Amino acid sequence: MKPISRVGFIGLGAMGGPMAGHLQAKGLLAVVGNRTPEKAVALAETLGVAAAKAPSDFSGCDAVVLCVSMDADVLQCCRDLAGVLAPGALVIDHSTVARETALTAAALLAEAGIAFLDAPVSGGVEGARNGKLSVMVGGDAEVLASAQELLSAYALRVTLMGPTGAGQATKAVNQVLVAGIAQAVCEGLAFGEALGLKPESLVPTLAAGAAGNWFLDKRGATMMADQFTPGFKSALLLKDLRIVQAMADALGRHYSVVEQSLVDYAKLVDAGYGEEDTSALIRLKRAN
Amino acid sequence: MKPISRVGFIGLGAMGGPMAGHLQAKGLLAVVGNRTPEKAVALAETLGVAAAKAPSDFSGCDAVVLCVSMDADVLQCCRDLAGVLAPGALVIDHSTVARETALTAAALLAEAGIAFLDAPVSGGVEGARNGKLSVMVGGDAEVLASAQELLSAYALRVTLMGPTGAGQATKAVNQVLVAGIAQAVCEGLAFGEALGLKPESLVPTLAAGAAGNWFLDKRGATMMADQFTPGFKSALLLKDLRIVQAMADALGRHYSVVEQSLVDYAKLVDAGYGEEDTSALIRLKRAN
Repeated sequence: MKPISRVGFIGLGAMGGPMAGHLQAKGLLAVVGNRTPEKAVALAETLGVAAAKAPSDFSGCDAVVLCVSMDADVLQCCRDLAGVLAPGALVIDHSTVARETALTAAALLAEAGIAFLDAPVSGGVEGARNGKLSVMVGGDAEVLASAQELLSAYALRVTLMGPTGAGQATKAVNQVLVAGIAQAVCEGLAFGEALGLKPESLVPTLAAGAAGNWFLDKRGATMMADQFTPGFKSALLLKDLRIVQAMADALGRHYSVVEQSLVDYAKLVDAGYGEEDTSALIRLKRAN
Repeated sequence: MKPISRVGFIGLGAMGGPMAGHLQAKGLLAVVGNRTPEKAVALAETLGVAAAKAPSDFSGCDAVVLCVSMDADVLQCCRDLAGVLAPGALVIDHSTVARETALTAAALLAEAGIAFLDAPVSGGVEGARNGKLSVMVGGDAEVLASAQELLSAYALRVTLMGPTGAGQATKAVNQVLVAGIAQAVCEGLAFGEALGLKPESLVPTLAAGAAGNWFLDKRGATMMADQFTPGFKSALLLKDLRIVQAMADALGRHYSVVEQSLVDYAKLVDAGYGEEDTSALIRLKRAN
């Protein structure tokens, strides 16, 4: 693998925006793109890099990083990039998508001699902003080695989980924990409210014991104050849970946390709260 | 309140044993008691304090600390102590019991001029051993002030949550989180196993992101290695969940995490795993 010095970044949302910023701070970022081009133009200006108007604007990149939401977008980006990147280049996908999408993306890029890593992340917008994400990688060890310096721009931990698709499999597991912990914390705090306990005492007391967790630390106080600015949008967790459910179905397994969370987040999205943080689940718990 | 210099301790289990040790290290412990008297005799010898053979052996104590399992045991201890402690003494109950049990205990002790704090704890056997428990207190602020030095022997954090019973109400909320996080982590790790992911990569990767939590840190690796030494016994979590369910019923609420966890832990206990750690829930998740 050749050393990576010119990186393109596609998908400048709540996660991608700050991640691109960290790459720029390391002197690695060359060009940024986004489905809504205005966002790319604005960030490109701020960071002093180029804004992509067409796939060909990524042609000089050694690596292109994707951070988008939907499986179809990942595949479209990979098809576009397969036509413009030089053989030996690398595409890293930080999106959360199906394992099959990772396998398809890797295969179509391989035809053009381009390497691929599925590398979904966890750590929330806080992790993206402070450069402390956990990156779960599927792919080849040598390819990952060539990308370590790039990833270190925004990763606390990078773990090679197995061959292509293993990153997405790991992220699916991660989302079971994320959904289940949201269930636990939102239900517990709604119960605490119903019992008349004070949020300002309750949250730190719970956090100091065996119930301590990231979500309580980061979202406990805000959800009890009815603040649901994402964070991580409920509609995106619902999308991820559908990926998880398909994987569970393929294994012939029934997982109660996944099934309950699918019902609840679908209800939340249907009620118009899909753009709110996943902690908005407390709305349902309060009404039960 | 008079200063506390002679403390009695009743209930020398996985939590109480190390907590009594911390009191001894502070020079506060005078006498220990236990339902199985041999345990008290053995620990008394180790710590160089007296072993109680009868309630009257606690008569010279300024404070007696309870760390037992069942509501009936808390009430029996309080009835016994009401007959032997001097007016102005204090009883602190670290057991997890119903809020009504705390109110009854406080009332019967008050008749003898004895103060009471309901003060359940969280932080697991690790927290008891390293003296870093979160203590959730119900009772009078002045009474708590008199007990702060005693509690600091094994507490990371002491929080006055409200009047008598508020400590137990808070612990009930804590157990909703504890049960729900066990659901999330056990289901996620069973799913990870089914997907063929390696435990030694999976656990630290999940722990480094938004799915991070106490239970994953402390029990993730052991449960994937089929080690279920408590920790916190499944039968005791089931007992606690029944307290929670009664409180939810009284509020007219339905809580899905609580209801699913009651079903699952009853199944686990019925199958003979009640003495195992709560992480043994992964047995059910693997079989689903």
